[in-house]
Amino acid sequence: MALFTSALTLPVFNCYSSQESSIDVYPPNWWVGMHDSNVELMIYGDDIADDTVTIVNSDVVLREKHALESANYLFVTLDTSKAKAGDVKLRFVDTDGSTRDISYSLQKRRDGSALRKGFGPRDAIYLIAPDRFVNGDKDNDDVEGFIDKADRSLKGGRHGGDIEGIIQHLDYIEALGFTQLWSMPLLENAMDTYSYHGYSTTDYYQIDPRYGTNEDFLMLSRAANKRGIGVIMDMVLNHIGSNHKWMEDTPSNDWINNNSKFIGTTHKRESLHDPHAIKSDIKGFSDGWFVPTMPDLNQRNPHLANYLIQNAIWWVESANLSGIRVDTYSYPDKAFLSDWTNRLISEYPNLNIVGEEWSVNPAITAYWQAGSKRHDDYDSALPSVMDFPLQAAVIKALTNEESWNSGFISIYETLATDFLYGDPNNLVIFPDNHDMSRIYTQLGHDVEKWNMAMSLLLTTRGIPQVFYGTEILMQNEGSEDHGIIRSDFPGGWPSDSKKNAFTGEGLTTDERWAQQRIKQLLQLRKTHPLQFEGSLKHYAPTDGVYTFFREPISTPEGKKNSKVNAPTPNETRGDKIMVILNKEPVDIPLTTYDEMLSSHKTLTRVSDGKSYKTTDTISLPAMSATVYIAH
Amino acid sequence: MALFTSALTLPVFNCYSSQESSIDVYPPNWWVGMHDSNVELMIYGDDIADDTVTIVNSDVVLREKHALESANYLFVTLDTSKAKAGDVKLRFVDTDGSTRDISYSLQKRRDGSALRKGFGPRDAIYLIAPDRFVNGDKDNDDVEGFIDKADRSLKGGRHGGDIEGIIQHLDYIEALGFTQLWSMPLLENAMDTYSYHGYSTTDYYQIDPRYGTNEDFLMLSRAANKRGIGVIMDMVLNHIGSNHKWMEDTPSNDWINNNSKFIGTTHKRESLHDPHAIKSDIKGFSDGWFVPTMPDLNQRNPHLANYLIQNAIWWVESANLSGIRVDTYSYPDKAFLSDWTNRLISEYPNLNIVGEEWSVNPAITAYWQAGSKRHDDYDSALPSVMDFPLQAAVIKALTNEESWNSGFISIYETLATDFLYGDPNNLVIFPDNHDMSRIYTQLGHDVEKWNMAMSLLLTTRGIPQVFYGTEILMQNEGSEDHGIIRSDFPGGWPSDSKKNAFTGEGLTTDERWAQQRIKQLLQLRKTHPLQFEGSLKHYAPTDGVYTFFREPISTPEGKKNSKVNAPTPNETRGDKIMVILNKEPVDIPLTTYDEMLSSHKTLTRVSDGKSYKTTDTISLPAMSATVYIAH
Repeated sequence: MALFTSALTLPVFNCYSSQESSIDVYPPNWWVGMHDSNVELMIYGDDIADDTVTIVNSDVVLREKHALESANYLFVTLDTSKAKAGDVKLRFVDTDGSTRDISYSLQKRRDGSALRKGFGPRDAIYLIAPDRFVNGDKDNDDVEGFIDKADRSLKGGRHGGDIEGIIQHLDYIEALGFTQLWSMPLLENAMDTYSYHGYSTTDYYQIDPRYGTNEDFLMLSRAANKRGIGVIMDMVLNHIGSNHKWMEDTPSNDWINNNSKFIGTTHKRESLHDPHAIKSDIKGFSDGWFVPTMPDLNQRNPHLANYLIQNAIWWVESANLSGIRVDTYSYPDKAFLSDWTNRLISEYPNLNIVGEEWSVNPAITAYWQAGSKRHDDYDSALPSVMDFPLQAAVIKALTNEESWNSGFISIYETLATDFLYGDPNNLVIFPDNHDMSRIYTQLGHDVEKWNMAMSLLLTTRGIPQVFYGTEILMQNEGSEDHGIIRSDFPGGWPSDSKKNAFTGEGLTTDERWAQQRIKQLLQLRKTHPLQFEGSLKHYAPTDGVYTFFREPISTPEGKKNSKVNAPTPNETRGDKIMVILNKEPVDIPLTTYDEMLSSHKTLTRVSDGKSYKTTDTISLPAMSATVYIAH
Repeated sequence: MALFTSALTLPVFNCYSSQESSIDVYPPNWWVGMHDSNVELMIYGDDIADDTVTIVNSDVVLREKHALESANYLFVTLDTSKAKAGDVKLRFVDTDGSTRDISYSLQKRRDGSALRKGFGPRDAIYLIAPDRFVNGDKDNDDVEGFIDKADRSLKGGRHGGDIEGIIQHLDYIEALGFTQLWSMPLLENAMDTYSYHGYSTTDYYQIDPRYGTNEDFLMLSRAANKRGIGVIMDMVLNHIGSNHKWMEDTPSNDWINNNSKFIGTTHKRESLHDPHAIKSDIKGFSDGWFVPTMPDLNQRNPHLANYLIQNAIWWVESANLSGIRVDTYSYPDKAFLSDWTNRLISEYPNLNIVGEEWSVNPAITAYWQAGSKRHDDYDSALPSVMDFPLQAAVIKALTNEESWNSGFISIYETLATDFLYGDPNNLVIFPDNHDMSRIYTQLGHDVEKWNMAMSLLLTTRGIPQVFYGTEILMQNEGSEDHGIIRSDFPGGWPSDSKKNAFTGEGLTTDERWAQQRIKQLLQLRKTHPLQFEGSLKHYAPTDGVYTFFREPISTPEGKKNSKVNAPTPNETRGDKIMVILNKEPVDIPLTTYDEMLSSHKTLTRVSDGKSYKTTDTISLPAMSATVYIAH
């Protein structure tokens, strides 16, 4: 909290001072015209808890005031329903009569903010480990007052990557064809060591200075948006870093689970749903900590709940986000998750939010998604979850032999279970992420299998997410260490390597081919958005062949033949996308797919533009993934 | 159908003759006072389709009459709502004026028939392969007119077991503690070869004469009922045997799927639920045949649907069944399955019916159970399904090493997914069955693992089913052949072996111990019915220990201490059953289970009656399953 110093002069921040002592306020500003016109301020100042509070000269109404165990926190709820944008003066009078005033800014919202369109099935997401992508600004590698300095010799150390590095290479991300950017958390992690991953928040309102400033983050958002790229923020609701100021001066005795002492979580997420669960297992899961350096928040405290909800809204509104990725989704209090999602969605009905629920059981992941049929009356407004079941199924499909119960059947069975989900098309799908072995390594460094996995995941139902470096076959052979999985991107530290993924310099033939394949498939998504937000139809796998189609949800009566180079959705509306994965060399009469192709006459192979009639037989080599456009 | 000859004089059967030619009627009789007062008769006789039909001297009303493609079938619907028990005369007049009369018997129902209580969570089911259990009547080993003769040298041949053999050994089944008997199908399978398994029905109304007569089956039911043992009939709705008369004279062109020609089913049951399914995959699953000798019935034909529904009711009513096991449950037409279950349950609201849906995905098995939350508006009245997911989980738990994601966690995760089921307590659970390797073989012939599996499956939630011979460690080492899995029971052919499971003669120490262990656990079920139809509470497995409790659904305010030897439910009402499975030697302070044991003072170990205080620490050897009663 000490980071709100006068050095910060961004418009979205406020610096408060008074005659006697500084006061910090969270959120540091708010907006008029929100769906929920109340905002609860956490006021932090010496002995402020027993102050009386008044609002001076404003249409803002003070609705509630709460003090908790710490004498230095006061929670004040303002009703802004009749307020106009501008500064509000709040006056705090101590029991001894001394007075402190603060000025609180209520701002005007961005046009269209409430109805912003979140990321969706048309999109493709590029996931970045910001410390490991590009070091764009060497000046912020080490920052005074922050113990964990840059040291590239350490796997778990900071390597110097930053927001400026991302901004400098948005052209690359755009050229690949990605339309959304998800960076691992950028908020302050003032931890002594191992801080680069970003999941040990020490300030919910401050970008870590080693990544840049809050303004840098807004600049990234603006620069990305200009290129048609949305920004998804990675948010952590479950825990903080142990160097968060809340651990020195804790607002209330129940702020941190297990009386602020470490007891590890059981990770038994099933206990939340299990009709046979022992209460202590539920508590052990929800209230346990990840590690001793990550104190577990008790979101049952309504002021903490409000704090986290408002913080999320604050970032959406400030940084113009297209969505949120929520870390360790099911670990916080379950009722809080319902409140958090409902509050976010009531503010932003079209925002997308994806929860990380690391379970390979679709019945567990589906439970959290809005619209899923549930056994209980739990009310979740979460639009999306990470599709861990499909990720595991793809690996099984490509690493196991084909038989009646192994191989492609894993993918087929997993997608068939989509009936559990409220909205399967809105799941985020991925070959790997920052917490697991890279896909190329999971597939035994086999470029054909990599192509099968990527071709599937960039064309099947869902919103694909690709971890930086996947496009150049980055791998972690021989190590499961997260620091190796999140290795420095070639070209991000140009001085130390002859390999540069941005320029192509030093890439192997396979790496170059992979990069082009990703571009090709993402380009296809752009020319055929209706198909990729449309239906999936797949044939049950037979003899090592798995075939699926994408088509617009409602096929129009006629289709147009277009000869222009950059077709618009209207011009490709009648197309279907056909994808065939196969393990053995095979000849397939296209009439096999009559149910899908009977109204089409020709197909174009995406890789080389070769044309086929729908009466032809196609020959496919072993271990191939072939994508066609049916016209 | 020719089997309804004048040789059959059972009261439930009727033999019809007229001046001109014989007429067969299905069902062969019916009852007054049914919930659905209509019964549709399939009338089979030469050129009967264009006859006019009248009812002579009865309160029965003729509601409908349908002829299909074959000239020899007529479907006549009788409304019995105003009828009294007695014979109804139906008159058939041909186009040339010739007349045929038949007398149709409407009987009085057994008292309490409609509200019969089906098998349930208090029960334990003994599954028998009737050809392989006991040869009680050598005279019916070979039957004139039936090609497939007894030949014990053939794995897939008939070995001579029969209904009489089961009747002779009901004492054994009762002494083990089983309360339900499920035999593989006993209906006529007049196939040329490989007929012993019973799943190739050639007459839906006739017990196979090599097993006995219809009257023998009723005798078995009466004799079992006297011992408190219910009879569950194995019914096949999906297909018939290719020697069924319907294949010679097919009632309609659509009676058999795929125009009466073999096309194999895809076995892709997921297609029924898959939102992405191709229509041809749904058809390929539902309409495909199992094997060329099992023509697949098209239950979309309403007359065939009625035939199958009425056949099931007829057997429940005739043989006083406590339940039905439905073979290959999901393979028939899905809408028909809804009709079939709803019709059965509307006649018998408390009957139990368990469907075989061989999927290890609980989302698929749960779909069929009544009361499950579904994504669609499918209406299933099926009370129970076979719990294949738990079976697979038990094997995985006991054959994989313990780790964060393997070992006991498989069982825990599977049971935690019970939220998908309408009624998890009513699932039928099993270590193995007649279609898979025997449990002892699946567990590598390890008697400790066998004990862990059986102790779990006879005490956790659900209705346990045990395949004959499991109690003496029958195995199938080195062969997956069904004929080996369904080997002759030692003692069933006393002349050929010194081993006799009925007398104990020739059993090894392990086999004798296993038999006693089953008795002990089934006895526990009998003294604690409220616990076994009550709740399951389980602790998430930790360090290779998995502990669970059974308790009555609502714990009474006080509990009684009983000193009598045979406690009634009232006397054990306050007890809890505690089961601990563990892989490594371990000392466990019982206070670990305070949440379950805090209101109890002592525990008795079931294996030897040893007593513990709930403040004690218990020592458990490696690879053990220990069961306690907490008083």
